[in-house]
Amino acid sequence: MFRFVFTGFAVLCLISLAAFSRDTQHPSLPGPPSWLDAHRVNAERLIKEAHADQFAWNRLAELTDTYGARLSGSENLARAIDWAVDAMKTDGFDNVHTERVMVPRWVRGSESLEMTHPPHHSIPMLGLGGSVGTPPDGLDADLIVVKNFDELNQRAADVKGKIVLYNVAYAGYGQTNVYRTTGASRAAQHGAVASLVRSIGPIGLRTPHTGNMTYAEGEPRIPAAAIPVEDAERLQRLVARGIRVRLRLRMGAHFEPDVESFNVVGEIRGSEVPDEVVLVGGHFDSWDVGAGASDDGVGCIVTWETARLMKKLGIRPRRTVRVVLFTNEENGTRGGTAYRDRYLKEAERHVLAIESDSGVFAPGRLGFTGPEGAVAMMREIGTLLAPLGFSEIGAGGGGADIGPIAAAGKVPMLAYQGDSNRYFTIHHTPADTVDRIAPEEVSKAAAALAVVTYVVADARERLPR
Amino acid sequence: MFRFVFTGFAVLCLISLAAFSRDTQHPSLPGPPSWLDAHRVNAERLIKEAHADQFAWNRLAELTDTYGARLSGSENLARAIDWAVDAMKTDGFDNVHTERVMVPRWVRGSESLEMTHPPHHSIPMLGLGGSVGTPPDGLDADLIVVKNFDELNQRAADVKGKIVLYNVAYAGYGQTNVYRTTGASRAAQHGAVASLVRSIGPIGLRTPHTGNMTYAEGEPRIPAAAIPVEDAERLQRLVARGIRVRLRLRMGAHFEPDVESFNVVGEIRGSEVPDEVVLVGGHFDSWDVGAGASDDGVGCIVTWETARLMKKLGIRPRRTVRVVLFTNEENGTRGGTAYRDRYLKEAERHVLAIESDSGVFAPGRLGFTGPEGAVAMMREIGTLLAPLGFSEIGAGGGGADIGPIAAAGKVPMLAYQGDSNRYFTIHHTPADTVDRIAPEEVSKAAAALAVVTYVVADARERLPR
Repeated sequence: MFRFVFTGFAVLCLISLAAFSRDTQHPSLPGPPSWLDAHRVNAERLIKEAHADQFAWNRLAELTDTYGARLSGSENLARAIDWAVDAMKTDGFDNVHTERVMVPRWVRGSESLEMTHPPHHSIPMLGLGGSVGTPPDGLDADLIVVKNFDELNQRAADVKGKIVLYNVAYAGYGQTNVYRTTGASRAAQHGAVASLVRSIGPIGLRTPHTGNMTYAEGEPRIPAAAIPVEDAERLQRLVARGIRVRLRLRMGAHFEPDVESFNVVGEIRGSEVPDEVVLVGGHFDSWDVGAGASDDGVGCIVTWETARLMKKLGIRPRRTVRVVLFTNEENGTRGGTAYRDRYLKEAERHVLAIESDSGVFAPGRLGFTGPEGAVAMMREIGTLLAPLGFSEIGAGGGGADIGPIAAAGKVPMLAYQGDSNRYFTIHHTPADTVDRIAPEEVSKAAAALAVVTYVVADARERLPR
Repeated sequence: MFRFVFTGFAVLCLISLAAFSRDTQHPSLPGPPSWLDAHRVNAERLIKEAHADQFAWNRLAELTDTYGARLSGSENLARAIDWAVDAMKTDGFDNVHTERVMVPRWVRGSESLEMTHPPHHSIPMLGLGGSVGTPPDGLDADLIVVKNFDELNQRAADVKGKIVLYNVAYAGYGQTNVYRTTGASRAAQHGAVASLVRSIGPIGLRTPHTGNMTYAEGEPRIPAAAIPVEDAERLQRLVARGIRVRLRLRMGAHFEPDVESFNVVGEIRGSEVPDEVVLVGGHFDSWDVGAGASDDGVGCIVTWETARLMKKLGIRPRRTVRVVLFTNEENGTRGGTAYRDRYLKEAERHVLAIESDSGVFAPGRLGFTGPEGAVAMMREIGTLLAPLGFSEIGAGGGGADIGPIAAAGKVPMLAYQGDSNRYFTIHHTPADTVDRIAPEEVSKAAAALAVVTYVVADARERLPR
């Protein structure tokens, strides 16, 4: 999943947005002596080491090839967690351990969608995470297609007993995914028996996108699934021709009891102020389709790389760098909330929280959210990234997993954001595999995050909060 | 399917290839009076009418939305054939009728492929047309991955009892699909129990491509399927790491008895020489995935448009224009051979045979195969296509359905060829839908084919053969 957590941070965001004006270009000419000078050599070494080989891409390939999809509660996630612990120990990290989190276990079961009238076709689909199933024999109903919630409300009298399809053109993830997350209950309110959503993303190759949904209190819980853009358009055309379309939906989706899972933690303990922490991480779980490569295997790997590169180069910063691979971001965010609960008393000792959960597809950028003084410091650190082609660190730090601890401790947040069109083309689909991520994209993200992490962890002055 | 039929035509091809030199640009300046002048006005009218509305795209959408995949022997193909007959009658064509053809009925059945070691994953797959199935419980075997037939032969001793995967990089359809069509028997020769092929096409979105395969006489018949590029690469990486990979393949594929199908025929009878025929068509059947839009619904529609546009404009050429929607191109070519058998005595009265079976994705081109005099005449006709942006009619006429009659009658052949990269990205996949074909691409192909068809049918001089 990909979302910005603004809770409690609106003010910080506004400040940081205002602070990033257009004139933040940094000439590379040598200026007067700066606090930054002490970190230049190591920054260069980190960038060089990140590009010295394909270690990070290879680790991502090993993870995703071997364990594949890693839905919360699955055997594959549990095995991948064991693998990560071993790998962090191999890297020589300090304090490698797991932190127990109880997570939901949603099971897709078998599922299918067929058009039964006019002539039979099967329609590719993916049930939405959190959905209930249908009766074992499925449910049969006529289709009604709407373009948005307004049309749903206007045609409310026609909805009863029908399957509602939201054929909503993709206008960016943040704007369109409300149809996925809330569409079922809004349709159920008017008596719909199931809810379909046009997949949230650019057109693919008949590619459905799954993702989480939730039910509103007090409304009937009806099954919810996503279909490809092509099928949504086809169904729309059929009904526009006055053809009655009848569908049969079968979904075995259900919840099983919560199961044990773990956040994976490894550190480089700070040499002078070990109680102050730069938190870096991604989420280790994924949806049950694809291999969770861009969402969010690569986010785990590139944040993990920050510490591995320092360790490899013998760099131990003043403050602690803590890598956390969060569990259960996709359908519960229980890893992120468990981290906050566990470290609540130390929340204010988090100097910076970094998350990567938007892939690393080029062109990537760094986004930061923090108070004005921190923005200024970040702007200076950004000049060290010139060899990577980052002209500046922009606005937009945040992440679902770091959001809770950041809110608790008023912790500034940084995010690595890959190209969103490429990301959302494969997001939550079977096509989220390592093959379409270039090794240089991984190296670049790792290098950028390593430099920022290192400088913030090693700077004499704490990043303002 | 997409293939050139060179049988018996090698000499013609060589002649036509030689005839198309680089200096075949046609200045649009008015030249001396030409036989072509009599056809200019109607050519312009045809081009204009083809672009006047989205009739052709809408007809393609209606076909593919309503009947979807149209595998030989399927109910959907039978219904679509009825629809086409009605539509041709509505268009006012002459002599609308069907011609009976017995076609094979291959049934995919349910199918799945799973990696059972290391940790479980399901692998997207499509059984290949013509394949046998597995035992009902599937078959379990270790995997061996080879890069080509040479490696298969070198490692022949390791093949026995294994599932062979051909992980062959796509180097163009004609070059690579031999692994799909013949890989199973070549693996079976060394004792393989099943054969997998990396899908023939550019990387998609975890998209398997089906297509036909055949068994060599005398070798055991083993199940054959295609997997996506991503999965082939993943399996290759796993074995490269020294990991033993075990797979479970289940396929319900089988043949049922041949069933009745039909070529659909409609004509504009010639005003002066009705016994001379310009044959235009595509194939109406498709694979059982996708909606058969580019392969070859659009080929049927744009060739059908040649006659519809003439009819609409009140143009009746000297010779007969015969539109044929061939059945069973994909897995038997029985429509094309039945046509040849039926019209064998009239084969030499076929003036030109036109097929569209490579989609209409821009940039498209026209390819022609015929004797030198015909090439020269085509070159002149090509000047009428300047408003469509075709600089010339190049080499490469042919088609699986027109091949048999053309071979029998030494009939020159013309083909419309869409962009091959876009075409083979969705070829034989669920993503072969109307959504990615632009209305202007359809109009342009229809206009180009209509002009050529009309001029060849109406010219005083017969196209040399």
